[in-house]
Amino acid sequence: PGVDLVLPDIGYLEQERTNLAGIVITHAHEDHFGALLDLWPRLRVPVYATAFTALLLAAKAASEPGLEPVPITLVRPGQRIAIGPFEVEYIEVAHSIPQSHALAIRTPLGLVVHSGDWKIDPSPAIGPPTDAKRLQELGEEGVLALFCDSTNALREGHSRSEADVARAVAQLIDEAPGRIGFTTFASNAGRVLSIARAAAAAGRDVVVAGRAMRRVIDVATELGMFEGAPPFLDEEAYAHLPREKVVVLLSGSQGEPRAALSRVAREEHPRIALSPGDMVVFSARAIPGNEIAINAIVNQLIMRGITVITDEERSVHASGHPRRDELRQMYAWLRPRIAIQVHGEALHMAAHARLARAAGVPSVMMIEDGTMVRLAPGDVEKIDDLPVGRLYKDGRLVGDVDAIGVIQRRRLSFSGHIVVSVVLDERGDAIIDPEIVMTGIPVED
Amino acid sequence: PGVDLVLPDIGYLEQERTNLAGIVITHAHEDHFGALLDLWPRLRVPVYATAFTALLLAAKAASEPGLEPVPITLVRPGQRIAIGPFEVEYIEVAHSIPQSHALAIRTPLGLVVHSGDWKIDPSPAIGPPTDAKRLQELGEEGVLALFCDSTNALREGHSRSEADVARAVAQLIDEAPGRIGFTTFASNAGRVLSIARAAAAAGRDVVVAGRAMRRVIDVATELGMFEGAPPFLDEEAYAHLPREKVVVLLSGSQGEPRAALSRVAREEHPRIALSPGDMVVFSARAIPGNEIAINAIVNQLIMRGITVITDEERSVHASGHPRRDELRQMYAWLRPRIAIQVHGEALHMAAHARLARAAGVPSVMMIEDGTMVRLAPGDVEKIDDLPVGRLYKDGRLVGDVDAIGVIQRRRLSFSGHIVVSVVLDERGDAIIDPEIVMTGIPVED
Repeated sequence: PGVDLVLPDIGYLEQERTNLAGIVITHAHEDHFGALLDLWPRLRVPVYATAFTALLLAAKAASEPGLEPVPITLVRPGQRIAIGPFEVEYIEVAHSIPQSHALAIRTPLGLVVHSGDWKIDPSPAIGPPTDAKRLQELGEEGVLALFCDSTNALREGHSRSEADVARAVAQLIDEAPGRIGFTTFASNAGRVLSIARAAAAAGRDVVVAGRAMRRVIDVATELGMFEGAPPFLDEEAYAHLPREKVVVLLSGSQGEPRAALSRVAREEHPRIALSPGDMVVFSARAIPGNEIAINAIVNQLIMRGITVITDEERSVHASGHPRRDELRQMYAWLRPRIAIQVHGEALHMAAHARLARAAGVPSVMMIEDGTMVRLAPGDVEKIDDLPVGRLYKDGRLVGDVDAIGVIQRRRLSFSGHIVVSVVLDERGDAIIDPEIVMTGIPVED
Repeated sequence: PGVDLVLPDIGYLEQERTNLAGIVITHAHEDHFGALLDLWPRLRVPVYATAFTALLLAAKAASEPGLEPVPITLVRPGQRIAIGPFEVEYIEVAHSIPQSHALAIRTPLGLVVHSGDWKIDPSPAIGPPTDAKRLQELGEEGVLALFCDSTNALREGHSRSEADVARAVAQLIDEAPGRIGFTTFASNAGRVLSIARAAAAAGRDVVVAGRAMRRVIDVATELGMFEGAPPFLDEEAYAHLPREKVVVLLSGSQGEPRAALSRVAREEHPRIALSPGDMVVFSARAIPGNEIAINAIVNQLIMRGITVITDEERSVHASGHPRRDELRQMYAWLRPRIAIQVHGEALHMAAHARLARAAGVPSVMMIEDGTMVRLAPGDVEKIDDLPVGRLYKDGRLVGDVDAIGVIQRRRLSFSGHIVVSVVLDERGDAIIDPEIVMTGIPVED
């Protein structure tokens, strides 16, 4: 309640700061680098990332007053870099944001691979496909342990390609009689490029509404990822474009109340408006917990006569995570001696663990946040449980549940609040009548 | 926040009470009869329902102190009954609770059908399949308007049969090495029967944990719906049953924190415990908004070594609502002149409206809560927007958003609360230092 951001409690890492050789960022999604700006000042160790990630981080730091920029050691995709006693190799993988990487971490006791977030996509919208050849070579070299993405470990088959999404998007733009709004995750530059290309092919201009989306477009443009794409116009251009000549990119696919999409749905956006017969495409999925906010927006749009298309009806979204056939392929390439499941709810990690066992991995270990594991020498073993927890950010303050007052706020919202002011004199007698102020308390007639 | 129940604001119906001939209940799901006990005293008009629905309502009234029982005029499945100027016929349909009905409402100006909640299931677990013959006859007679369930109007094909679920349930019970817990909607007596039969066939006893589930079982038993089922044991029996000889029914499939499932997951249930190797089956789907609470329970179970099965992996749940092929079948049977979509988010109603048009219905009308429509004579037309809204129940109080203090509570949870006590004398000078009490306010070091 009233909290802007939930961050991990890195108290243990702060204690072990002198043993921390560096922070290696695989890609620029919020759940992989979002806490860096707030927490790096507590660690001040070297940070490694590729250009796209570093530029997005810099743009984010610049947009929020009071944040200290974080110095980044730039890595090129595919590069090997020495970090303390380790050698870390960035291996290109396809995912729903440019420049995503798996990490091959060479240690004196063996080669450890961390998959990062990945999928196998023969035709990503931006960047190369997952580097199958390099992963096979690592398998030949011998992999001690694989830490691997579990998000879609319950889903059979193979994830949808971005090329399929591009086709569905182009078809919708061809069919639409009026304006079309697309909402997607701001960081999905490949999706934005697919939409922009389809718009240009249909003779439509592309308008961008939303700061986060503009930020990603600027960074991708700076790195040459959008070559051949049409220009991305600002909101000001919208009013001058005919209905059948415009595609508008709207931030806020998760129902965020202050984002462009939500304001357009409520007819409160200063420059972007939609009318009956226009269309809004949700080129995204609902992150669990956001369903109610998203449904409210969909309902508002539909009751105003605007057509809404979701991925239930058309192939307008593709997950960036591997399904079961892709996981099997990764195990076939790497043939690790140890498999440790990461990135997913416990349900997904458990299904992933069963798949890894079925794929012939000799040692499969389920861990939790804070589990310390010895991979070598000897058999893999859990050796400690470290303290973990959460920090909360409210405005510029970062603190634990007590410091931010989270539990008290929950109680206030459950029960309301009553203040009774009593003024007593020295003898303990009331001087005036008690005064009662009630906030959030039910009132009976 | 802190609200127990959200109810519709029936202020308009209260004004029009003398024009209200009665309340006709199609089936005993909470979103169809849940507000009756709280709001009926404001209307005091005749209420019609079948025995299963009436008995569940009575059991609910008896379980909550201070609620007045509602007198019910009992209707038999298939019966026709005169209500004011109307004749209402109860038509049996398959759904996820026993004794669900569509309504054929004969009026001086034509025949109106309300589908209620329904699906086409050739083998429901309890009760007859949807009465196709009667619906076809109504189509022959000529239907002025159909009000029809939109829940699954985005899903192609035909909904899964309860017989498929029964098979999947039996297979899981056969495979399970230890205890098996099933959680499902308490009102789904057919599902409970399928689970109990499969348990008996596998030589396992059935234990019931959860008051709502016990209440439904008692009513279904009283009405002879559970003939041939094994006895349903109380929680006390659990401790004496061997692991491989027990199936336990757990209430709380939506993650309700005080329900049996949630307490078992937290190891806080006084009588029911599960151990590593046991299994919990979610024979239900997540109602949007409950995902996070459900995920937390799944994670707790899995991290304790308990196997969790959801309908993502096995066919352990079937929706009670019609998919697109079933909707098409309904329109083919009834051939209404007017189609009005109900029961679903706007997204589903819009898809349903397109389907109805494609099925050849001449007049298709999208409405909102509070839209007043004239069906006849003349063309169908929206003629008024009536006031609608929500009431909130907190403890025994029912009131609107201001009376219950909902907005103030939200503000408290967002910002916290500061009280400053200042005592001034007659001249306006402070007598003592101001006293400050902060609740839910972030504290900086």
